[in-house]
Amino acid sequence: MPETKTKKSEDFNEWYNEIVELADLCDKRYPIKGMNVWRPYGWKLMNNVDRLIRYEMEKTNHQEVYFPLLIPESFFKKEEEHIEGFGREVYWITHAGTNKLDERWLLRPTSETAMYPIFSLWIRSHTDLPLKTFQIVNTFRYETKQTRAFIRVREIHFFEAHTCHTDFEDAEQQVKEDKEVAERLLKKLCLPYILSKRPEWDKFAGAYYTISIDILMPSGRTLQIGSIHQYKDNFAKPYEISYETEDGSHKYCHQTTYGMSERLLGALIGVHGDNKGLVMPPEVAPIQVVIIPIIFKGKEKNVLDACNELHKKLTEDHIRSHVDDREITPGNKYYDWELKGVPLRVEIGPRDVENKEIVVVQRNSGKKRSILQETAVQTIKKELDTIAHTLFTNAKNLLDENMQRVQTIDEAKERKGIIEIPWCGNEDCAMELENILEGNTLGEPIDREACKHACPVCGGAAKTWMRFAKTY
Amino acid sequence: MPETKTKKSEDFNEWYNEIVELADLCDKRYPIKGMNVWRPYGWKLMNNVDRLIRYEMEKTNHQEVYFPLLIPESFFKKEEEHIEGFGREVYWITHAGTNKLDERWLLRPTSETAMYPIFSLWIRSHTDLPLKTFQIVNTFRYETKQTRAFIRVREIHFFEAHTCHTDFEDAEQQVKEDKEVAERLLKKLCLPYILSKRPEWDKFAGAYYTISIDILMPSGRTLQIGSIHQYKDNFAKPYEISYETEDGSHKYCHQTTYGMSERLLGALIGVHGDNKGLVMPPEVAPIQVVIIPIIFKGKEKNVLDACNELHKKLTEDHIRSHVDDREITPGNKYYDWELKGVPLRVEIGPRDVENKEIVVVQRNSGKKRSILQETAVQTIKKELDTIAHTLFTNAKNLLDENMQRVQTIDEAKERKGIIEIPWCGNEDCAMELENILEGNTLGEPIDREACKHACPVCGGAAKTWMRFAKTY
Repeated sequence: MPETKTKKSEDFNEWYNEIVELADLCDKRYPIKGMNVWRPYGWKLMNNVDRLIRYEMEKTNHQEVYFPLLIPESFFKKEEEHIEGFGREVYWITHAGTNKLDERWLLRPTSETAMYPIFSLWIRSHTDLPLKTFQIVNTFRYETKQTRAFIRVREIHFFEAHTCHTDFEDAEQQVKEDKEVAERLLKKLCLPYILSKRPEWDKFAGAYYTISIDILMPSGRTLQIGSIHQYKDNFAKPYEISYETEDGSHKYCHQTTYGMSERLLGALIGVHGDNKGLVMPPEVAPIQVVIIPIIFKGKEKNVLDACNELHKKLTEDHIRSHVDDREITPGNKYYDWELKGVPLRVEIGPRDVENKEIVVVQRNSGKKRSILQETAVQTIKKELDTIAHTLFTNAKNLLDENMQRVQTIDEAKERKGIIEIPWCGNEDCAMELENILEGNTLGEPIDREACKHACPVCGGAAKTWMRFAKTY
Repeated sequence: MPETKTKKSEDFNEWYNEIVELADLCDKRYPIKGMNVWRPYGWKLMNNVDRLIRYEMEKTNHQEVYFPLLIPESFFKKEEEHIEGFGREVYWITHAGTNKLDERWLLRPTSETAMYPIFSLWIRSHTDLPLKTFQIVNTFRYETKQTRAFIRVREIHFFEAHTCHTDFEDAEQQVKEDKEVAERLLKKLCLPYILSKRPEWDKFAGAYYTISIDILMPSGRTLQIGSIHQYKDNFAKPYEISYETEDGSHKYCHQTTYGMSERLLGALIGVHGDNKGLVMPPEVAPIQVVIIPIIFKGKEKNVLDACNELHKKLTEDHIRSHVDDREITPGNKYYDWELKGVPLRVEIGPRDVENKEIVVVQRNSGKKRSILQETAVQTIKKELDTIAHTLFTNAKNLLDENMQRVQTIDEAKERKGIIEIPWCGNEDCAMELENILEGNTLGEPIDREACKHACPVCGGAAKTWMRFAKTY
C-alpha cells in the first residue's frame, strides 16, 4: 500500500502538515495566512466533536447562547489585564461601507467583554444564579507565530462556557464539574491528558487562576487543548455583575469559564494517526465503518445486496457506515479509507456471502478476521470499542513514557516530553529552567503535592513540582 | 390571562418588536445596533430550523463546508457587479493588533468571493461536477435602514448553498431542486410563500436571474426570506472555474446559489403569533409539549408521577416535552408557555390521574379536551399534526385573501398585500407603479403567464403580470 509521503515516525510536524490536506480535512490555500477552508470531511469531524460537547453541556444544565462577533472598543477596555493580554492580537474594524466608524469594533478573541455587560442585565437576584451558558463560535486572534492547521490558526473554532455564581465556593464547584466534563469528553476522543495549574505570569488575562488541559503529541511537544478559569470577581467588578442576596444586600458574582478549540482535532490527528494516515476515534469518526464489496464478474448482485443489507442494519443501530461501490480496485479503496482513518473496514466477497460471513479489518492494528453475518452488528460494535480502547491505551503509554519526575537539571536535560522538577516558587527560577530546557512552564499539578527536594536553580526549598515541556 | 402589551391586531410592528424580547428569543440591548444577543430559547429555535435545512441538504447530496469569514479586498473585487452591489455595505478590517494591514479584509456579506477562487482549485474535470456545497454561517451587512430583530440585522445567521455544474441546463435542474427544498422546508414551518422572478434591476449582484421567496406578514407587507440565483458563468469567468470535458476541451462552469436567513424566524413569529405571544410550528418548537401538574395538597406525588411518566414516554417517541414543576400557580405557567408559543399544553390533576386521563390544550385555538392516558402519545402526535395543519391553513388564507390580480391602478390602490398587475416590461412603468402604490416590485410569477391586458401606466401591451407589495 502506498503511504503518506512523509513518515510520522521520521518527521512528525511535516507528516502532520501533509495529512490534514491529504485526508481532505482542510484546504490551506486560502489567501489569508492561518485561515483555512474546512472541507466536508474535516467539518463533519469537527461537528461530531461539537455534538459531544453539546451533549455534556446539556447534561450539566448549561444553556447555549450566541453573542455578537463584534465588540466595541469601550466594552473591551473595561478589564485592564484583559486588554493588556489581548490588545496586541485583535483585528480592528474601522470602516463600514465608506463610513469611518465613530468607535472601533474588534472581532472577539474570546467573549468575556461581549457577554459580561449583558450578564449584568440578566442577573438581578440570587434566584438568577447560577447562570450557566456556553457558545460554539469562531474567534479571531492575530497570531504572529508560524501557523499550523487546527493548532495555530487565526480564525479559531471555539467552545466557551461562561458561568456566574453566588460566591467563590460555588464557582469552585463549577471548576470541579468542568474537570469532570473534560474527563468524559477526552475519554471519548481517546486522549489522555494532564491538568496543570498555570503559573501566575502565564494565566489567562484577568483570571484568578487558570488550569490548562494539555496533551502530549508524538513529537514530544505538548499541545494545550483547553483551559478552565476561575475569575473570582475580577470581571464582575468592572462589568458590574452583581445580585441581591436573600437578605437584601448586594454582592458581586464569581465567575468561571471553560474553553476548548479545534485543537481537539489537532490532538486526535497527531496522537492517533500513523504512516498510512488518520486514525479516527470511533466516537467522532465521520464514517465509522466502510463496507467494500469485493466483486467478481457474475456475483456482483449478491455481494452488493449483502453490503447494502449490512449498511442498513448498521444505520438502524446508529452506526455511521458507507458502502464504497466506486468502480476502482478494492486496493485503491483501502488506501483512501485508511488515509481518512475510518476505524473499521468490512470486506464482503462472493465466498463470504456463501459462508454467511464478512471480513472486518481494524484500521489501527491491521487485524483482520471473519465474523458471522448474523451477529455482525453486535460484533462490529465490540470491534469499535476495542479500537477505542487500544487507541486510548497506546496514547496513555506514550504519555506515561514521556512524563518523568526528576530532581536535577542534568536529569531533566536527558528526558523528552514533560518533566516535573522541584520548584521554589520564584518566577526567575522558572525562567532559568525554561532557558536551560528550551521549553515552557506548563504549571504545577492541580493537587499540589509536598515536594521535599531543593529547587535545582537556586537551591531553596521547593514548594511544589513544576512541569516543563516544549509546547506547540 | 394577561396578554402582550401591544395587540398584534392593532399594531403588528410594535407587537413584533415586543414579543421577540418578551418570549426570550433575543436581547436587543447589545450596544451595536442591529447586532442582537441570541438567548437560549431563540437559539434553540434557530438550531431546529438549521436542523431541517441540514436534513434537506443531506437528502439532496450537498456537502457542508466552512469558509473563512474574512475576504481579501482583491478577491472581492473580481466580479464587477458584485462589488458594485455590496461595496457600500461591507465592514472593513484595516488593522491587526497595532499593525496596519497591507491589504484590507472585509467581513463576508455572502461567500461567493471567498469560495470561488478555491472552487477553481477543486474543479479540474467533468468528473468533479456537479459540486454541491453549503454552509451555515453568520454574514455581515452594514444596514442603514431601521433594524428589526431577525428581519433586518447587521450580523445575519445565514444558510447559503453554492453549486457548480457542467452547463446551463444542469444548473437549471439545480434551481428546480432548490424550489423543491423550499417547498418541503417551508411546509414544515407552516409558511405558505410565493416565488417571483426578480426584475432585471433588482436581481442579485452578478446573477443571471434571481428568484425571490416571499411570505406575507399580517401587516400586509411581504418579507423576502430566501432567494435562488442562477449565475450562468458570470462568476465562473472572473474566478476561472473551468473544467475539462470528456473530449478534452475546457469549459466554464455554470453556477447557482440558494440562500435563506434568520428571516425564517421573523416569518414564523410574525405569521403564527397572536396577542398572547408566539405560536411555534410543532416541527421546530424548542418545546413541543409542556406538561403542567395541577397540584392539590396530599395528591402531589400521584400527579407528579403521572407528569414524569408522560414526559418519559414522549421523550422515547422523540417528542420534545418539559414538565413545569415550578412552585408558582398553574395560571402563571400557562401565561409563560403561551408567551413562548409551546404548541400543546398538557394539564394533569388528581382527578385526571384517577380517571386515567389527561387534558390537552392547543396553543393556537385554545381548544381543550380530555384524552386517555393509555393512548396519550399517539393522540398528542395527532394533536401536533392538527396544530401544524391549522397554522398552515390560516396562513394560506391570509395570503390568498391578500394577493389579488387587478387591471387598473385604481383597483390596485384599493387592495392591501400583494397585487399582480399587467406590465409592459419597461423599468420606467414599474418605477411609476412603485411610486403610485408606495410599494416595491417583487417580480413576475416564475412561470410567466400570457397577460392580454394593457400596461396601466403606458397603455402598451403587457408582457406579463408583475407583483407589487410593501416590503420589509
